[in-house]
Amino acid sequence: MKKTYDAAIIGAGTAGLTAREEISKYTDNYVVIDGGTLGTTCARVGCMPSKSLIAIANAYHSQQGLEALNREDTKPALPDGAKVMAHVRRLRDGFVSGVTKDMESWRDRLIQKHARFIDPNTLDLGDEILHADKIIIAVGSKPVIPESWQKYAKYLIDTDQLFELETLPRKMAVFGLGPVGVEMAQALSRMGVDVICITRSKAIGGLTDPDVQNYVLQTLSKEMPIRIGPLQIVGETGNRLTVGFENETWNVDRVLAAVGRRPVLDGLGLENLGVELNDRGLPGFDETTFQIGNLPVFIAGDANGFRPLLHEAADEGRIAGYNAMAPTVTGFQKRIYLGITFCEPNIAVVGASHKSLNRDKIEFVIGESDYEHQGRAVMMGQNQGKVRLYARKTDSLLLGAELIAPHGEHLAHLLAWAIGSGMRTVDILSMPFYHPALEEGLRSALRQAVKNSALPKPQFEMRTCPDE
Amino acid sequence: MKKTYDAAIIGAGTAGLTAREEISKYTDNYVVIDGGTLGTTCARVGCMPSKSLIAIANAYHSQQGLEALNREDTKPALPDGAKVMAHVRRLRDGFVSGVTKDMESWRDRLIQKHARFIDPNTLDLGDEILHADKIIIAVGSKPVIPESWQKYAKYLIDTDQLFELETLPRKMAVFGLGPVGVEMAQALSRMGVDVICITRSKAIGGLTDPDVQNYVLQTLSKEMPIRIGPLQIVGETGNRLTVGFENETWNVDRVLAAVGRRPVLDGLGLENLGVELNDRGLPGFDETTFQIGNLPVFIAGDANGFRPLLHEAADEGRIAGYNAMAPTVTGFQKRIYLGITFCEPNIAVVGASHKSLNRDKIEFVIGESDYEHQGRAVMMGQNQGKVRLYARKTDSLLLGAELIAPHGEHLAHLLAWAIGSGMRTVDILSMPFYHPALEEGLRSALRQAVKNSALPKPQFEMRTCPDE
Repeated sequence: MKKTYDAAIIGAGTAGLTAREEISKYTDNYVVIDGGTLGTTCARVGCMPSKSLIAIANAYHSQQGLEALNREDTKPALPDGAKVMAHVRRLRDGFVSGVTKDMESWRDRLIQKHARFIDPNTLDLGDEILHADKIIIAVGSKPVIPESWQKYAKYLIDTDQLFELETLPRKMAVFGLGPVGVEMAQALSRMGVDVICITRSKAIGGLTDPDVQNYVLQTLSKEMPIRIGPLQIVGETGNRLTVGFENETWNVDRVLAAVGRRPVLDGLGLENLGVELNDRGLPGFDETTFQIGNLPVFIAGDANGFRPLLHEAADEGRIAGYNAMAPTVTGFQKRIYLGITFCEPNIAVVGASHKSLNRDKIEFVIGESDYEHQGRAVMMGQNQGKVRLYARKTDSLLLGAELIAPHGEHLAHLLAWAIGSGMRTVDILSMPFYHPALEEGLRSALRQAVKNSALPKPQFEMRTCPDE
Repeated sequence: MKKTYDAAIIGAGTAGLTAREEISKYTDNYVVIDGGTLGTTCARVGCMPSKSLIAIANAYHSQQGLEALNREDTKPALPDGAKVMAHVRRLRDGFVSGVTKDMESWRDRLIQKHARFIDPNTLDLGDEILHADKIIIAVGSKPVIPESWQKYAKYLIDTDQLFELETLPRKMAVFGLGPVGVEMAQALSRMGVDVICITRSKAIGGLTDPDVQNYVLQTLSKEMPIRIGPLQIVGETGNRLTVGFENETWNVDRVLAAVGRRPVLDGLGLENLGVELNDRGLPGFDETTFQIGNLPVFIAGDANGFRPLLHEAADEGRIAGYNAMAPTVTGFQKRIYLGITFCEPNIAVVGASHKSLNRDKIEFVIGESDYEHQGRAVMMGQNQGKVRLYARKTDSLLLGAELIAPHGEHLAHLLAWAIGSGMRTVDILSMPFYHPALEEGLRSALRQAVKNSALPKPQFEMRTCPDE
């Protein structure tokens, strides 16, 4: 007999779990179907283990600037790679078990099988057929490894495999400097791995502003070699892989392939939904409701390839779950865009990117500052960074920013919230900037943005008292 | 002959310098009078050298958590105190020379003498008399050392003298845990100095919320002993000073007296202004214009004992300078209050304090969260902290916060700007919170504040799309 549910969710990752949470407010007659390893991408192979590794690498690195002040002129010992990786896995296991523990209350509704669409309301689980009034696709993503590299598989690791390494390789190539690539390349390099980075474009960490891109390239190159352009695998040399760029070659123990992730859509039977699929195999969907066409089917999280960030996946799952249960669908606004790369200094893109402002032909002005002489950054020994703010020319409304800066993750939140609350650069200048704080570095950029806008320059940054 | 100026500024510190900058927009006929060492309190003995020392101490401290991962089980060497202090002074000298270099363009208007009021328009400089249409008092502050301690002067150092130490003492008592006291006590302790702290009340770092105070006391006590209550100096024992608290005593090499600062008003002749002085010797002044009564005299910065923070001093100097030159005085709003203590975790008071809300009988709700299980804080090995947010009960408008948290200085800016832009806690929840970030720790507190407010709990944190 065919089982019938109010809703079925395919995938128990971040988007699937928030969709489930939302759906469970309305019905108990739902299932979650996941044929893979439990635990979210974030907890298993993404945000959590990567930031754990970064935390250790940076703590080691911060010693180096102190050498001159040490009682003895001993170089700090390099970390024990096996201990480091075991520590990362221990933390990772803690985060994963947090996720699976949260699943216990509804574990009887979890089906650990692969699902394939027969039609928009029917799923084939291999040994059973299941009907659901509404279905949410939240199957997540996996790292891309180009077909031509497959024969070197024994040297290649992707970001899903990285945290399983028993110890740190001696020499490693990192292909791709998106957020994960640049984070891991720097962390490994800071722990003594000899790293060579090769990446296709200067859009390191997702930056689009050429001035910030160039600054980042120059800054990160001080720690590890970076080559921009087409990479190639030359072949095996002894027990190593030879990788090349133009007329240089390197023999490495391992290659970390961080060239992107793609939705895990194989075998899902999306062709049976009766809607057109694009060249990536994805159906069209509404970016505010996450509904696919007029079908009773929604697609959320990394599965839709839209904004593959944890906090966006959580929002999308929640919206999809809500709309799956509602009589009519509702569109929700995206939060202000925030993308952070946790290398040091941190890289961030906030709100409208430089590229999108140009593409959308917005008339904007730029305010810029750097952290090379910024007081607090100097004291911290981290005086590297550049911030570019984008404000609407007419009224100085803050629209976006791209930056690399010490503690940039926090500066990025500050700017994102300022954009979200509709502040103009001139309004922000009346906020407190503590001294000596890294936030003061933003002030110079804000002042320049005000000056470059069409607004008359205000006499004062503090506001006058209101008339009584 | 008596010289006559449009304006005279007494004091070339932060407030005096911003007052000068403002005045110079209107007249060249001014003087700045300073009989002390040039360079601001901030650069010479305050923010800058203290944060430089903290940066080193924390870098050393961050190694300790990594010991278990080290290749060899060697304890990191303690820093060489002489090298550390020389490094701090080198940075300090750089900041001070930045200040004095900025003075060069108007150096001919600087008079390096002490000034004493004869009347509100006349100053006695010892060997000359000077008349000015407007006078700005910006004489700054100095550390308080109680009279009864003077006989132990050879053991006592105040925060102005601390950075002159040739090396670090072995055993030290710190009296007073205001911002400077707690910062220096922890930094010294982290560099191997055996520190005992004695402070009069639990208002460590200026906190007023008993729950946060207790958490702070408990957290900081893990690193160094802290006693709350009356302290006493018992007397000399050999080459050491014996200090006591209840029935405990300690023999220490040095005592850092950090029991407060007071305006440097001695010899200034304020009694000749013809206005009443309070028991601290201060004349009344308007907190929005910084004018003293209806006199042509203004008082700004630490000199007025109002908000002894650099960014406030800079604002006050600017306002005083502007009003000194304007035909009528204008009142300016203070920025949202922001007070940060740079111990680890950072302590901050933002906007309205717990105490002020109670005093002003505001009906408010509290949202609370801690950092003990917060994901990012765990990864950083800095999972200690507590945040208490205060929001207006009726509409959840964010009013203030008190907190101790990792990277709390940045969380405090974020909250201060949110308050300054008039956001309600419910509005803030629609802002982006990146994952995994310390900002996520604020979200739990925000959610609780919304729940405790009189607002209906919103179905969603994301905003719906506007109707088209």
